[in-house]
Amino acid sequence: MNVIVAYFIFSCITAGVCAYMPLSKPFLRNRSKRMVHPYFRTPECSKAMSYTIASNNSLPMPCIILVNPSLDQNVGSVARAMLNFGVWDLRVVNPSCNILSGAARGLASGADEVLENAKTYDNLKSCIADLHCVYATTCRTREMNYEIMTPSRAAEDVMSTVNHEIRKKYGILFGCEKDGLSTEDVTLANAVISIPTFNQFASINLAQSVNILCYEMWRKQTEIANIAQPDSVFQKKSFDGFATHQDLEFLVNRLESCLDQISYYELHKDKKPRMSLLFRNIINRVSIYIGLIDNFKFY
Amino acid sequence: MNVIVAYFIFSCITAGVCAYMPLSKPFLRNRSKRMVHPYFRTPECSKAMSYTIASNNSLPMPCIILVNPSLDQNVGSVARAMLNFGVWDLRVVNPSCNILSGAARGLASGADEVLENAKTYDNLKSCIADLHCVYATTCRTREMNYEIMTPSRAAEDVMSTVNHEIRKKYGILFGCEKDGLSTEDVTLANAVISIPTFNQFASINLAQSVNILCYEMWRKQTEIANIAQPDSVFQKKSFDGFATHQDLEFLVNRLESCLDQISYYELHKDKKPRMSLLFRNIINRVSIYIGLIDNFKFY
Repeated sequence: MNVIVAYFIFSCITAGVCAYMPLSKPFLRNRSKRMVHPYFRTPECSKAMSYTIASNNSLPMPCIILVNPSLDQNVGSVARAMLNFGVWDLRVVNPSCNILSGAARGLASGADEVLENAKTYDNLKSCIADLHCVYATTCRTREMNYEIMTPSRAAEDVMSTVNHEIRKKYGILFGCEKDGLSTEDVTLANAVISIPTFNQFASINLAQSVNILCYEMWRKQTEIANIAQPDSVFQKKSFDGFATHQDLEFLVNRLESCLDQISYYELHKDKKPRMSLLFRNIINRVSIYIGLIDNFKFY
Repeated sequence: MNVIVAYFIFSCITAGVCAYMPLSKPFLRNRSKRMVHPYFRTPECSKAMSYTIASNNSLPMPCIILVNPSLDQNVGSVARAMLNFGVWDLRVVNPSCNILSGAARGLASGADEVLENAKTYDNLKSCIADLHCVYATTCRTREMNYEIMTPSRAAEDVMSTVNHEIRKKYGILFGCEKDGLSTEDVTLANAVISIPTFNQFASINLAQSVNILCYEMWRKQTEIANIAQPDSVFQKKSFDGFATHQDLEFLVNRLESCLDQISYYELHKDKKPRMSLLFRNIINRVSIYIGLIDNFKFY
């Protein structure tokens, strides 16, 4: 008998806490179909179009400038990270690697067009000639006066000209894998971006730094364009609302009548009020959906 | 003559806009030494202590759980990304690679202890047995009811128990490189984390996903501990304040008297009022520091 009760309570709790238990097949037939939040709908165009779509975006995105990169794989990873967040303009200054090698393309994992359209320069000055504002990423402090900002602050700056008639073009500098940017490179920048890290282990991989900068740019851009992913959303397979306290009360009563049917309290009559309280305490804490309670109406 | 004027204007503008021009050596002697913002001070202990310091942190950090990872390099990159943001507890379920190989250690780039102390499990259930709350990262929608949250929202949740006497232990699941998490794995999680990405190119590399999650955890943790990197800070080498409008007026007057000395306006007397306006317009827009203006007092 206790096994049945334990099973019953267990089902309620697991189903409720996780809200994951799928409804039985017959139940699904007459219910609304699976609904996907607009943000999560699979795009209709193919991945192959992604570079074209990103580069036609009317909102501003900075260009990513790699100064003296030395590993093909890193440049490939950078390209992938960029396109993951809709950043498409890659510039490479004096690379000591082949940015179109098989290894680079392998790591780009479909972002080949970012690599193929990347512009190569033999010095930083010519690379940034057409830009209005350039930020340098570095975790070392330098012997000069300059402003240091977080990636999210930099993203705010880049997006701040979104409503201006003439927009500023921004670029973000990343140094080579071994030494980062030289002080001469940093001097050409308007300000410095420092990614907040654990001070005792602060050296971030090149592609990981690009990843975080692009992530922040995308977050800020989608926020401005009012298409930001919601902080929290409920993905429904078949969902007709969360159970109210009245629905939960039904569940508690159903549970108690089950216990009565199996004469659970026969020997422990004094325990009934306390058990009843405990059931309410457990069940009222969880977030169950109505369909789940409906299931119990047939047993 | 025009060359001198052009040079003078050019110096003012470049120096001012960038505020980077270092002061000449004699000038530095009696000035305050280079000041570094406390957040950016180099830690006194060595990088070798980083794992120990991170794992003794009293603030909560989630553990990172890799389900069926297949590439040594990725696990190494994950370890580095974790320690960059003070996350240290790595768990690996049923790996089809050697997480202690030379390739893994190479990419870990000093975060070897994260790999060496990683616990390996043969199934996900035993891996999460001691955790109170588990989030699954995925970019695919599944046929079930569940909550989807952003990394920053997840970080808020993890840090929400910081003031509780008994803290919850959190874990974040990441699937294998090829297929991500299975629906069975996702069913074991309390909620789903979805990293906001460009919809047309949404598949993020494993280590890059870990990178973003850990970055958000670190940001939220430092915010709660009141040690967050400031959004913007001025790094000073030798700095005695920004020039006021009075200082800038001195600069404009100095410039005009230079022009008078070289009889610049002799032939173009009618242009003087307009030139004077233009100089003010240029110089009043820039943010110059006082030391820079002092330099001109000697010419």
